[in-house]
Amino acid sequence: MKNVKEAAITKLEERGVTINDIATIVYNIQGSYQNITVDDCKEMVLSIISKRETLYTILTGIAIDEIAEKGLFDPEINKIITDDNSLYGLDEILALSIVNMNGSIALTNFGYLDKTKPGIIGQLDKEGKSSTKCHTFLDDIICAIAASAASRIAHQVIKK
Amino acid sequence: MKNVKEAAITKLEERGVTINDIATIVYNIQGSYQNITVDDCKEMVLSIISKRETLYTILTGIAIDEIAEKGLFDPEINKIITDDNSLYGLDEILALSIVNMNGSIALTNFGYLDKTKPGIIGQLDKEGKSSTKCHTFLDDIICAIAASAASRIAHQVIKK
Amino acid sequence: MKNVKEAAITKLEERGVTINDIATIVYNIQGSYQNITVDDCKEMVLSIISKRETLYTILTGIAIDEIAEKGLFDPEINKIITDDNSLYGLDEILALSIVNMNGSIALTNFGYLDKTKPGIIGQLDKEGKSSTKCHTFLDDIICAIAASAASRIAHQVIKK
Amino acid sequence: MKNVKEAAITKLEERGVTINDIATIVYNIQGSYQNITVDDCKEMVLSIISKRETLYTILTGIAIDEIAEKGLFDPEINKIITDDNSLYGLDEILALSIVNMNGSIALTNFGYLDKTKPGIIGQLDKEGKSSTKCHTFLDDIICAIAASAASRIAHQVIKK
Repeated sequence: MKNVKEAAITKLEERGVTINDIATIVYNIQGSYQNITVDDCKEMVLSIISKRETLYTILTGIAIDEIAEKGLFDPEINKIITDDNSLYGLDEILALSIVNMNGSIALTNFGYLDKTKPGIIGQLDKEGKSSTKCHTFLDDIICAIAASAASRIAHQVIKK
Repeated sequence: MKNVKEAAITKLEERGVTINDIATIVYNIQGSYQNITVDDCKEMVLSIISKRETLYTILTGIAIDEIAEKGLFDPEINKIITDDNSLYGLDEILALSIVNMNGSIALTNFGYLDKTKPGIIGQLDKEGKSSTKCHTFLDDIICAIAASAASRIAHQVIKK
Repeated sequence: MKNVKEAAITKLEERGVTINDIATIVYNIQGSYQNITVDDCKEMVLSIISKRETLYTILTGIAIDEIAEKGLFDPEINKIITDDNSLYGLDEILALSIVNMNGSIALTNFGYLDKTKPGIIGQLDKEGKSSTKCHTFLDDIICAIAASAASRIAHQVIKK
Repeated sequence: MKNVKEAAITKLEERGVTINDIATIVYNIQGSYQNITVDDCKEMVLSIISKRETLYTILTGIAIDEIAEKGLFDPEINKIITDDNSLYGLDEILALSIVNMNGSIALTNFGYLDKTKPGIIGQLDKEGKSSTKCHTFLDDIICAIAASAASRIAHQVIKK
């Protein structure tokens, strides 16, 4: 899976998302509960991303966004995806493949991040709405990774 | 199911929660998106509560809270439930039985409400932590009902 | 949503699946519990398919299968999708968007159908493995629709 | 968590379930795909059981079954739980806390086991229906543990 991991991280960067962007969100939601650094958060984000389920979801979600951006899906479904209307819902469902693996704190964090859209999540959402970019799946995937990393940190620290 | 519905609403009231409390939360998270009244929200809360899945979850969740309050479970698990520590997680899982039936907006609203704890949700949480009351399951159930009602309102209005 | 419904049914047929194929599966898993006809099953399948969530999932899943068939995704993820290996998992996750809305009997039926692959589900699976077709997402979606229709029939009949 | 693990295994045994019973089910559903022994399955079952989420679910599910057996919940909900009717659904939902953590093969295996009820699962189901015992939550928890162990074995072997 090492090549797949490198491919996923490169893809994220191509689409405008760095590990640091995600770690910053994790730090902002979890740092007030625990004595952690942004570097701790980075490490945990990388650990979440290393899992097979996360890698497949990143690659699949970005692949759908890119094809929709190019307009290669059938017109009807292509427009539904690029519009990213709030009733579409499959972007949140796909992100659950990551969230589900990481416990119930991941679930509540996911909903919170999806609604408040801090940092890079808000940027992706705005870019997806105003330009020729489609980030319908990517923004939810970033929510899921950040929510899962925060959940894992909470579990680790409490276990100590 | 009519008797079950009445039993569930009475139970909610006995535990300190009115339909109006839940409707107020729905109005506060959904009212800025749509032209709705608190009465519209009340009606939708009642419609969510009328479903078999919701009724069973309300009755089961409160039943667990009450038995834990009386200390009738085995000591070890009884303490885990009354402590409601953030890693317990089964309270969120049980609430998913309601959330799952109501689409992906319900899911993100659920996470948001669980984290921000507005109105009656925060009161239940505080009461559960500071007194002889146990609301470990109930507060998540209220989050789930409010989140689902908000999701249904969003769906209805957009459909028009 | 009427046009979207027609588009989804046409797409299903283009990919080799009729409403009757799905109804037959429903009849085979639910007919032994209840006094129902294949026509009752057909009606319920159509009712499940009419929901917004189902329609979006059908159109999105088939759209992904078709693009993978044409080899238009990035090579790495394209091969993962067409291979449909048992660890991919996003096909089952996407199908949950339908299953989740239809209660816990839908969930257990879904797992059962995904593992036993009766009727058209097995045909899609075989065709997807042996030819130039990709049905990675479609076969799980058919499992989800059949499982959900069976669940709804169980709920209806028991309510009577 | 070591004491909690011992408490959970003891509780399982008190309720009539051994690690070997669960391992046998895992072997029967996964042994045809891979070159594994019952001992490999035992080891994996113990690894699934060692997780915090599984332990909490075992202890909570059995605690509910026991209280229902004693008739200590409010009469209405007590009867719904002891009847274990197919529309109750919260037993499956609680078991998802285990299934969700273990990937999509766990999910399909779970549905399959819940429907076919092999070995100890069928025994619990029968005992729960015919006697003064209540195993409404326990049988689904055993399905979830066996399904998750089978999923983890599939993941491990394919990774090699």
